[in-house]
Amino acid sequence: MVKLFGETLAEAVRRCGNPVVVGLDPRWEQLPEKLVGNSAVDFAARAGAYEQFCCEVIDVVAPLVPAVKPQAAFFEECGPAGLLALGKVVDYARAQGLLVIMDGKRNDIGSTAEAYARGYLGREQSAWHCDALTISPYLGADSLEPFINVAHDRGAGLFVLVKTSNPGSGMLQDKLSDGEPLYRAVARYVEAQSSANCGASGYGSIGAVVGATYPEQLAELRAAMPHTWFLVPGYGSQGGTAKDVVPAFDENGLGAVINNSRGIIFAHQRAEYKDTFGEARWQEAVAAATREMIASLRAETNVGNL
Amino acid sequence: MVKLFGETLAEAVRRCGNPVVVGLDPRWEQLPEKLVGNSAVDFAARAGAYEQFCCEVIDVVAPLVPAVKPQAAFFEECGPAGLLALGKVVDYARAQGLLVIMDGKRNDIGSTAEAYARGYLGREQSAWHCDALTISPYLGADSLEPFINVAHDRGAGLFVLVKTSNPGSGMLQDKLSDGEPLYRAVARYVEAQSSANCGASGYGSIGAVVGATYPEQLAELRAAMPHTWFLVPGYGSQGGTAKDVVPAFDENGLGAVINNSRGIIFAHQRAEYKDTFGEARWQEAVAAATREMIASLRAETNVGNL
Repeated sequence: MVKLFGETLAEAVRRCGNPVVVGLDPRWEQLPEKLVGNSAVDFAARAGAYEQFCCEVIDVVAPLVPAVKPQAAFFEECGPAGLLALGKVVDYARAQGLLVIMDGKRNDIGSTAEAYARGYLGREQSAWHCDALTISPYLGADSLEPFINVAHDRGAGLFVLVKTSNPGSGMLQDKLSDGEPLYRAVARYVEAQSSANCGASGYGSIGAVVGATYPEQLAELRAAMPHTWFLVPGYGSQGGTAKDVVPAFDENGLGAVINNSRGIIFAHQRAEYKDTFGEARWQEAVAAATREMIASLRAETNVGNL
Repeated sequence: MVKLFGETLAEAVRRCGNPVVVGLDPRWEQLPEKLVGNSAVDFAARAGAYEQFCCEVIDVVAPLVPAVKPQAAFFEECGPAGLLALGKVVDYARAQGLLVIMDGKRNDIGSTAEAYARGYLGREQSAWHCDALTISPYLGADSLEPFINVAHDRGAGLFVLVKTSNPGSGMLQDKLSDGEPLYRAVARYVEAQSSANCGASGYGSIGAVVGATYPEQLAELRAAMPHTWFLVPGYGSQGGTAKDVVPAFDENGLGAVINNSRGIIFAHQRAEYKDTFGEARWQEAVAAATREMIASLRAETNVGNL
């Protein structure tokens, strides 16, 4: 039988003793100078710099955290060359023992959704070799089912956008309908999918994206979705703190993974690390920021005692 | 001043005398046998077959219709090799004089949405050289604004998912809130964007996706969105007919482009063309199906008299 992604993720979090996901968002303007060179206008050279940068981040974080989350957008911005680089980054991360959550927020009608699902989900069968993928729910249940079916068949996972971290997420997600905000309808669907396919951890393979910037909703949704893994963006540069994400965890410290992108990969630009490490020692800043985030989460939750 | 996409699209529809968009959805199982060969399991060979197939479709339809809509999912299913093929298909379509609407249904929070927008939008500045992109609105207005800003800067267009063609689209889109279905809130936002930036055609550059399978909503939204181009999927194999899409047009026959994917590109498998053309003459079936759709739309609307 195929091992469930919910179990694979629980094991990785337990093994590392922390729930940190490092977001690989290689923004050109923030890359260390020595990687940028003079290649600002050449998409292929830029893609090459992204690949090198992300692989060097992976070298630092692979011994420390359970997973990375490449952001497809920055690679796609470079055209086909960017996608070649993304493929290499995914494979490098896997080879270093990391789980890979592709942040693509894909979505389409059923028969097309299946193509996305087959393309991204599964370490062995898919072209992209990913462990999980983020998906967007606006098209409805029949657009999510093909992703869910492929994920279950291949031991892969999904994170469905439920309540996102951006200031404007309320425009649609908070709209009241039948006496509840829209995100609760999505949450109910996701929880039903995960609760129907749980392993020993008590968590299924169909997760939810819930932003660190909305601690009240984190608490509300944790209660409403007891079998659902949360992928929590918004920690760090978007303003979320370790205290803010406490409600994402169950009482044992399980049930959530917390993403930090810029706050880790561009830590050499943060006030507290700039003087100590500077740009020349940017990888040491990545290590320090990762360790600091792990320590903060361990101090606030039970994740270190799993 | 940059030419507005809304005007570019109006001119292309007028020049061709029809509003047909040919959807490039290269499903492996349906490709003509001679393109498939023995390469079913090799992603690179499969991507090569997709490229060849799509370029041969383009050869047939470029003299007939204003635009093509490549479906990113099928190319992404083949991994990085698929994206290389997609890039070549886009460039080939542009070289043949077609507008290219990338169907990627991209979406993300603002700072990341900008990367998608910069990557796809604009014939000259972007890595993908596309005229327009489909986007998904679940994350809210601040996730759409970066796309809209880049589109306006570069004379490119967008089509925001409003009411999609799939049977399950109602799950979220039809939820009643403040006395109206959710898709109306999205529609209002899109119309405000388009009406603020209209050219002589009366239509702006920020369009809406509204499915042919929901003729009542087409009529309702046409009335509510008088400055908004509609991209209408669902014609043909999803069940939509020329009669169904009549409400998408204004009284002059402008305001909508109608997509047909499988019904055109795999026309050699349709009952009415199978015997006449067969697989060996699949390109002739593409031409016949395209001409038939053009004739049907001209018979039902004023699009032929623009």
